[in-house]
Amino acid sequence: MKNVTRRGLMAGTAIGATATMMGEFSWSSQAKAQAPQAGTQAAMAGKQAPSFYRYKVGDIEVTVVADGVSRFPLPAGFVSNVDTAEVKKALAGEFYDTEIFSNNYTPVLINTGKNLVLIDTGLGENGFNQSKGSNGQLVNNIIASGYDPKQIDTVIISHFHGDHVNGLLKADNTLAFPNAVIRVPGQEHKYWMDDAEMNKQTSERMTGLFKNNRRIFTNAEVAKRVEPYEAGKDIVAGITSVATNGHSAGHHSQIVSSGGKSLFVQGDVTHVPYLFVRNPGWHLTFDQDPQMAEATRRKVYDMLAAEKMLVQAFHYPFPSAAYIEKTPTGYREHMIQWSPTL
Amino acid sequence: MKNVTRRGLMAGTAIGATATMMGEFSWSSQAKAQAPQAGTQAAMAGKQAPSFYRYKVGDIEVTVVADGVSRFPLPAGFVSNVDTAEVKKALAGEFYDTEIFSNNYTPVLINTGKNLVLIDTGLGENGFNQSKGSNGQLVNNIIASGYDPKQIDTVIISHFHGDHVNGLLKADNTLAFPNAVIRVPGQEHKYWMDDAEMNKQTSERMTGLFKNNRRIFTNAEVAKRVEPYEAGKDIVAGITSVATNGHSAGHHSQIVSSGGKSLFVQGDVTHVPYLFVRNPGWHLTFDQDPQMAEATRRKVYDMLAAEKMLVQAFHYPFPSAAYIEKTPTGYREHMIQWSPTL
Repeated sequence: MKNVTRRGLMAGTAIGATATMMGEFSWSSQAKAQAPQAGTQAAMAGKQAPSFYRYKVGDIEVTVVADGVSRFPLPAGFVSNVDTAEVKKALAGEFYDTEIFSNNYTPVLINTGKNLVLIDTGLGENGFNQSKGSNGQLVNNIIASGYDPKQIDTVIISHFHGDHVNGLLKADNTLAFPNAVIRVPGQEHKYWMDDAEMNKQTSERMTGLFKNNRRIFTNAEVAKRVEPYEAGKDIVAGITSVATNGHSAGHHSQIVSSGGKSLFVQGDVTHVPYLFVRNPGWHLTFDQDPQMAEATRRKVYDMLAAEKMLVQAFHYPFPSAAYIEKTPTGYREHMIQWSPTL
Repeated sequence: MKNVTRRGLMAGTAIGATATMMGEFSWSSQAKAQAPQAGTQAAMAGKQAPSFYRYKVGDIEVTVVADGVSRFPLPAGFVSNVDTAEVKKALAGEFYDTEIFSNNYTPVLINTGKNLVLIDTGLGENGFNQSKGSNGQLVNNIIASGYDPKQIDTVIISHFHGDHVNGLLKADNTLAFPNAVIRVPGQEHKYWMDDAEMNKQTSERMTGLFKNNRRIFTNAEVAKRVEPYEAGKDIVAGITSVATNGHSAGHHSQIVSSGGKSLFVQGDVTHVPYLFVRNPGWHLTFDQDPQMAEATRRKVYDMLAAEKMLVQAFHYPFPSAAYIEKTPTGYREHMIQWSPTL
């Protein structure tokens, strides 16, 4: 099949009067050039581009800043209400690896002209799965993008999962963003600091999350900068919070608005789009209340589709911004087209 | 409709026992924070990320290097055999502007370990539509990606349209890649240098192309570096040419192979995917022989789908690499997922 197809193509290239007639040839890579260049043998560059991307929402400048990616064997039950075989089919449909799952982490830096605001903080230097520098890269990428972490005056947290909060602290437990107030959803903060809620937990994952959140939010430097926010209020001029509970008890999203344009910074309203946007009824194993998470997802995505509002999504493939179409079976994301100029 | 939907979402956020109850609120951006940060008023970074992206094909390093984008009013007859209304519908379906068309230019730099090879050269400093530095950026982006244009030992040209060949020369008509042999499709070179072919032309566009190609390829420094290539032969070890005529008389593509992996660098076998991949029967106004171009397109894309071979495509949105699925009505591109590490 393979050879037939390739041979078919090669034969097929002899189309039309001007085409070169050519014989069958081997597809192996043996050098056949009559006069190959000796070559400069330039050293491989060996480094990826810094992963940031910039666009405007009205007068506001948005910089998408990747923290990186974790790659791990697709866990059984990753989608809790769907067979793994069906999940693998969806991954294969996107030409993605069906055994190793790639989880992207994408905070966003927003310059309103008055405030420099970071939404979510990535895995941090203490983060999990930090193999080969493939994540925990937020601070490096902020610097590559032309900002200094010290310039950030406000950090907004969507919810208290490790990939969103661990980056608040550096490896030595000092502040990664020393001049920023840390705005947290009041509802979320209350939940994770509540001993009664902690003592109820039976799963290792939830117990671990409680411990991790206390490690971070009882740190004296963090604690004195924490300021709760409520849904429906502007955190800074141009950024308004919306309660989008379900993925966690007090999960919130942000709406960035300027000059009649709006951007919905969703946090984890959905995880990866090729699973949970296209199939909004699929439940992510990390959703604390899967039914509530699904209801929130459908409400938000109905709104995004109806409003044609751009969404910036933490776990979408970088640069993680898309428009949403409603389909008969769910939704479809349309990633923005990369612009080489601002 | 707009307000109802938004209000609906906001009301809908009060889901479940843990959700904050919230009243209706205005979506205008007036500051309402109780204690807004004064803000550091950091200057806007004001610059896009350098548009390059890197991946491996076996042991070969591929660097996608954007030349940029032109934006122009969608010309009547852009798709010669389809109503403009239908073209606009396809653009709207991707949430793209239906009046202003964005044309991306994406050369590719390939380090085989022995050779540093550039495929196609962008619009160059003398290029058309070079407004606001939004194109003609290839050399800048090569440098940003960690290479020096002087290191390039081989330039391969897919075909002789201005956005592929103009970048061979700088604004002062000196060579942009002074140490490179310029490998051109023999068939294409012969066609454009043929006076009888030139004298046949009646359209301003074709006459202009003949003039432009003679400006470039009769330049003494270019002419002495030009070396024709033929389909089915390796240009350097690891890069083999395939005749893919139709878009122009002697249009060729390249197959990059290493370690059992292959990449198809297609040139203009299709123009933008959301028009011509999904609708392979649509004819681009710039296709010299539309019937032959369509036949070539279908053969190549059948092969790409059957082989699950990655395609790197000059006019796809950056970073311009995708896998191809065959659909009942044509094909569908699945853009690769950006990896923040190499």
